[in-house]
Amino acid sequence: MTARRTDLATPRTPRGFADRGGAELAATRAMAERIRAAYELWGFEEIETPFLEYTEALGKFLPDQDRPNAGVFSLQDDDDQWLSLRYDLTAPLARHVAENVQKLPKPYRSYRFGPVFRNEKPGPGRFRQFLQFDADIVGAPSVSADAEMCMMMADALEAVGVKRGDYVIKVNNRKILDGVMEAIGLGGDDNAGRRLTVLRAIDKLDRLGPDGVRALLGAGRKDDSGDFTKGAGLDAAGADRVLSILDAKRPTNAETADALAGAFAETPVGAEGAAELKTIADLLAAAGYDGRVSVDPSVVRGLEYYTGPVFEAELTFEIAGDDGQPIRFGSVGGGGRYDGLVGRFLPENVPATGFSIGVSRLQAALTALKGADAAPAHGPVVVLVLDRDRIGDSMALAARLRAEGVAAEVYLGASGMKAQMKYADRRRAPLVVIQGSDEREKGEVTLKDLIEGAKAAAAITDRSAWTEARPAQVTVPEARLVDEVKAILARHA
Amino acid sequence: MTARRTDLATPRTPRGFADRGGAELAATRAMAERIRAAYELWGFEEIETPFLEYTEALGKFLPDQDRPNAGVFSLQDDDDQWLSLRYDLTAPLARHVAENVQKLPKPYRSYRFGPVFRNEKPGPGRFRQFLQFDADIVGAPSVSADAEMCMMMADALEAVGVKRGDYVIKVNNRKILDGVMEAIGLGGDDNAGRRLTVLRAIDKLDRLGPDGVRALLGAGRKDDSGDFTKGAGLDAAGADRVLSILDAKRPTNAETADALAGAFAETPVGAEGAAELKTIADLLAAAGYDGRVSVDPSVVRGLEYYTGPVFEAELTFEIAGDDGQPIRFGSVGGGGRYDGLVGRFLPENVPATGFSIGVSRLQAALTALKGADAAPAHGPVVVLVLDRDRIGDSMALAARLRAEGVAAEVYLGASGMKAQMKYADRRRAPLVVIQGSDEREKGEVTLKDLIEGAKAAAAITDRSAWTEARPAQVTVPEARLVDEVKAILARHA
Repeated sequence: MTARRTDLATPRTPRGFADRGGAELAATRAMAERIRAAYELWGFEEIETPFLEYTEALGKFLPDQDRPNAGVFSLQDDDDQWLSLRYDLTAPLARHVAENVQKLPKPYRSYRFGPVFRNEKPGPGRFRQFLQFDADIVGAPSVSADAEMCMMMADALEAVGVKRGDYVIKVNNRKILDGVMEAIGLGGDDNAGRRLTVLRAIDKLDRLGPDGVRALLGAGRKDDSGDFTKGAGLDAAGADRVLSILDAKRPTNAETADALAGAFAETPVGAEGAAELKTIADLLAAAGYDGRVSVDPSVVRGLEYYTGPVFEAELTFEIAGDDGQPIRFGSVGGGGRYDGLVGRFLPENVPATGFSIGVSRLQAALTALKGADAAPAHGPVVVLVLDRDRIGDSMALAARLRAEGVAAEVYLGASGMKAQMKYADRRRAPLVVIQGSDEREKGEVTLKDLIEGAKAAAAITDRSAWTEARPAQVTVPEARLVDEVKAILARHA
Repeated sequence: MTARRTDLATPRTPRGFADRGGAELAATRAMAERIRAAYELWGFEEIETPFLEYTEALGKFLPDQDRPNAGVFSLQDDDDQWLSLRYDLTAPLARHVAENVQKLPKPYRSYRFGPVFRNEKPGPGRFRQFLQFDADIVGAPSVSADAEMCMMMADALEAVGVKRGDYVIKVNNRKILDGVMEAIGLGGDDNAGRRLTVLRAIDKLDRLGPDGVRALLGAGRKDDSGDFTKGAGLDAAGADRVLSILDAKRPTNAETADALAGAFAETPVGAEGAAELKTIADLLAAAGYDGRVSVDPSVVRGLEYYTGPVFEAELTFEIAGDDGQPIRFGSVGGGGRYDGLVGRFLPENVPATGFSIGVSRLQAALTALKGADAAPAHGPVVVLVLDRDRIGDSMALAARLRAEGVAAEVYLGASGMKAQMKYADRRRAPLVVIQGSDEREKGEVTLKDLIEGAKAAAAITDRSAWTEARPAQVTVPEARLVDEVKAILARHA
């Protein structure tokens, strides 16, 4: 009943959002099932939280966002309540735990999988909807839980097909940096903003290099476009002290932890951070994760709420970019300890640690490594319709195939034989089933093997030879339909 | 670094949204995989569209919504563009097809699965986020496609475990009603609003009964709360004529189609509608779907955009409600032909037909029928920690179990033996692994079978007998850990 409109709407997805097809979705599902199995092997159980939460319940914990509510899609519902689309899977977990704190086992191991949303400027490969797969342990105060997180993240990467040596899980401790900042006079509530600036400066090390970070630790930095970012205002000695953390990296985890303990015990919090890393290093060694998980002082993570160990999963292999230059994919996930987040809701703090795998990013990296997602070998069998008044007969043939588990469809368009063959090609049909009136009278069907036919056609150059050979075509009694189709499919399996 | 807050946030989900746990999610996944397999057997391929679309691209096609944008969650992004959360999976498909019309095979068979969102007042069992599983054929003008839709909907219900006889797919044709409305003077653009009122009145037949519908066809109806809904303003003869459509139901599909053809050929559109139903009835009979799919003139569907056949999937079994009264679940899905929807974007119309299964609703019905979702048989093996300084040893034991595919976790809390056993119970652990210092020295581990232990405890009433028997506990060499654990698990499988 829709009248023809003169004001046509424009069919397009919003910027930063994309449609996804069957092969890509199947690859995502396969990857998610492998991550799921890895997490469940560690005793984690799934929960799902809604896509929308009260804005107040989510809080504002996005990295690199200074405007209030920047980065979050928010709206008012019919009751004029402010709701937001989840921007990660950690803030909703904190809400879930606080809401069910009496009912949950402690420690509580859970995992969550699904899309999250960022109201940001999209860019190449940067989407406003993307998939995360998170795991968290709530209620475990000791760094044993953080060590397990790092090990499980390594297991998950291997489960989806990243080879040992092609990734590293880096682990550090925020308390080292907290100690340094306290020592150089950046302690106290008054300096919270400057501490955050320091944090975000170090988090940009990969992108900006040491000089860029040093500028951001000091007066500030002008980027290539001329935009100026105000720095943390440290003097040269302060910036040196902060950057000296990076120098503590040693060949082994134990040595790095010892170097940190030696250099940053000036404050109790710094000493505690180094001791925790030593414990983690011991546990990693005992469990055989040395080399897979690396104590690395350069990792800080941009999120404000981490309170202890922080980790980052990095892919270390290189692939050739479009311009032939090698590309490293870098980070595909990370996390850390956030002992204060559940406490936003409760009179007491609840210790928690967790990590998030960027599934969309990881899938893109694996696709780049292994080639495009393998499309299914072929599409469904297509049953052609030579006489539209007898389409019921074609439907009956398709039904017999489906009843035996063979995917089959009837051509439902209005076009003739040639267009139907073209359709079957586009659907990547392995074969078509044809029954003209002659064949119907004789109780026969013709099966045309399109895969074999394509090979034969490529080999035959002479046109008359082609027409006479009628390659890869067979006429069989209707009763043999399913068996003959299965035989052809088996030949191409 | 989060300081203790005095203004605690309230941990709650917004009304009409809910968290979901592992057993329920696993049941949803299993159901979705069965529906997916059923659709793929018919040659459908998956696509996914984003959760957010331009508001203009989605259009406003929610039933029973008179205010502009009512029922839809909408927001402005950082570019001040209006975006909306998808409220169904049909409007985004129309956008997708229009955007890719040159690239897609025609006819184009696709399916989509995922949550949709309604900005409505939630109620008991009525959520603002729920799952749909849609299938559509675009570019097939003939009602063969509609007949296939009905058959596939039947197949999908049987695939998820609804028995034949416990459901019916009802099919009707909007053109019958269109013809009647034209005949009683409701044709033309001026009467579009009244036609919609007639449509929605009939759609409420189940809820309001014939008298309620008659009131809505006439002057209007006052509901129990005293609210008045304005009617379509038909006179008694007009309302009689509309309601007479319902009288055409006959025992068989062919008879119903014939009755409609006899009674409603007064307009060309009515005659066409009846003829299409006759074709559908013939195809259903030829394919053996009589009884599973029923031509039923009472189905109209509340959506404005349907242009031809409409269908509805109903569960017909009854379950006992909380008050002992039988409950029928009714509709779990539906759809129809919407030849104008893609045409919102294109200069030409594109024929399309499809249906949507309400997965959340169907799952609730099956749960009510078969009992609660079966939780997994048991949780992970829990390795206790008797000496927190030796937690690495416990981790190594758990790692050996995981390496052999046995889900296992180390207790990561700070509590003693008693609390750890309680934790293992809450986690539904089948057994716990214990290694005290004595056992460690001897190279042994103790396995405590919690399932056997619970049975034994139920049988033993005498306290001293219990203590002496130490039921279901065995100490074995560490090297035998995995084999012995697997033996216990096999015993309870």
